[in-house]
Amino acid sequence: MVGHFITFEGGEGAGKTSALKGVADKLCKAGYQVLTTREPGGSVIAEKIRETILNPEHTEMDARTEALLYAAARRQHLVEIVQPALEQGKIVLCDRFLDSSLAYQGFARGLGIEEVYQVNHFAINQFMPQLTLFFDIEPSKGLRRIQANQEREQNRLDLENLSFHQSVYEGYQIIIKQAQQRIKVINADRPLAEVIEVAFQRVFNYIK
Amino acid sequence: MVGHFITFEGGEGAGKTSALKGVADKLCKAGYQVLTTREPGGSVIAEKIRETILNPEHTEMDARTEALLYAAARRQHLVEIVQPALEQGKIVLCDRFLDSSLAYQGFARGLGIEEVYQVNHFAINQFMPQLTLFFDIEPSKGLRRIQANQEREQNRLDLENLSFHQSVYEGYQIIIKQAQQRIKVINADRPLAEVIEVAFQRVFNYIK
Repeated sequence: MVGHFITFEGGEGAGKTSALKGVADKLCKAGYQVLTTREPGGSVIAEKIRETILNPEHTEMDARTEALLYAAARRQHLVEIVQPALEQGKIVLCDRFLDSSLAYQGFARGLGIEEVYQVNHFAINQFMPQLTLFFDIEPSKGLRRIQANQEREQNRLDLENLSFHQSVYEGYQIIIKQAQQRIKVINADRPLAEVIEVAFQRVFNYIK
Repeated sequence: MVGHFITFEGGEGAGKTSALKGVADKLCKAGYQVLTTREPGGSVIAEKIRETILNPEHTEMDARTEALLYAAARRQHLVEIVQPALEQGKIVLCDRFLDSSLAYQGFARGLGIEEVYQVNHFAINQFMPQLTLFFDIEPSKGLRRIQANQEREQNRLDLENLSFHQSVYEGYQIIIKQAQQRIKVINADRPLAEVIEVAFQRVFNYIK
């Protein structure tokens, strides 16, 4: 029995984390076994790597080091968390995966989508998500959502300026064009309940 | 003014760390500015990564994660420690670099020399050592040296069995054949003072 590996992607404030929770609830109610998880982190070693990546004192972090650390955390999370759950037949919903590295480090940080893909290819060893949902919102609107949400703890990336987030968005557009079979775009510029319903239908149609 | 980047490679017990200290002393006495350093580690971020790699509790460490973490530490060590010293015109002697990853993770752990090279290519971004000294000793002799040296703290790799170390040695032989211009082999199966003298001459002839 083999499960399904589905990733949720998008810029800051696209609502993908809330959508992931909503989709997971609906899948559980429909009787599926679901694991929700996020990158980077999820196991002892991956959490250690996460600490190194996100520590605000690490101002000397080089962009290539950062990309390699994300790939290392991805590998460990994959073998310790994702693959065992899939072997148990679960549906794994993962908040960010490969495409985030391609858009953020590869395109927005200027390291090159192809170069960052090569490093991640080594990390995932041909283990790709079967379905990826991209939550589409105009970057300036996404950032306004974040700023309006006082409960959300700001992270290092939230503090980048608008042009960085526009560049991330542009990176995603390139990746989506190259992987139209796998990545499905969901209009995230509407009420959350609607976003969740559309995302759930996408997932449900895929796994049923 | 640009310095020289020279790496020291070899299996366990080859004496490269002692030889490195000896060569550094001779270079200092000859009036050169020298930085001695080692991998992984050397800066705040690289030391954090080192802790994650070497922590004996991290028994779940995947071989690919390990290779990515070594590459991440290598990148950070390069930009924070090695390159600034070279810009100051120093001779940088580094205990282990790229070739260790190729021999240990690429060949001995079976990930593939070419695959591990690709990941490291991203990490070092074409910044190769100008000269590499390989300290050549039969693996079983190297291991006997380690076991006889009670002052030396055993690390995770010392505890691997002889066949692993023979495999590391075999990996180095492949790499040396592919990079004969850069890598010079030094017979390390003789008294340390002689090894140091030969290594010093190799370095001195290169930089003078």
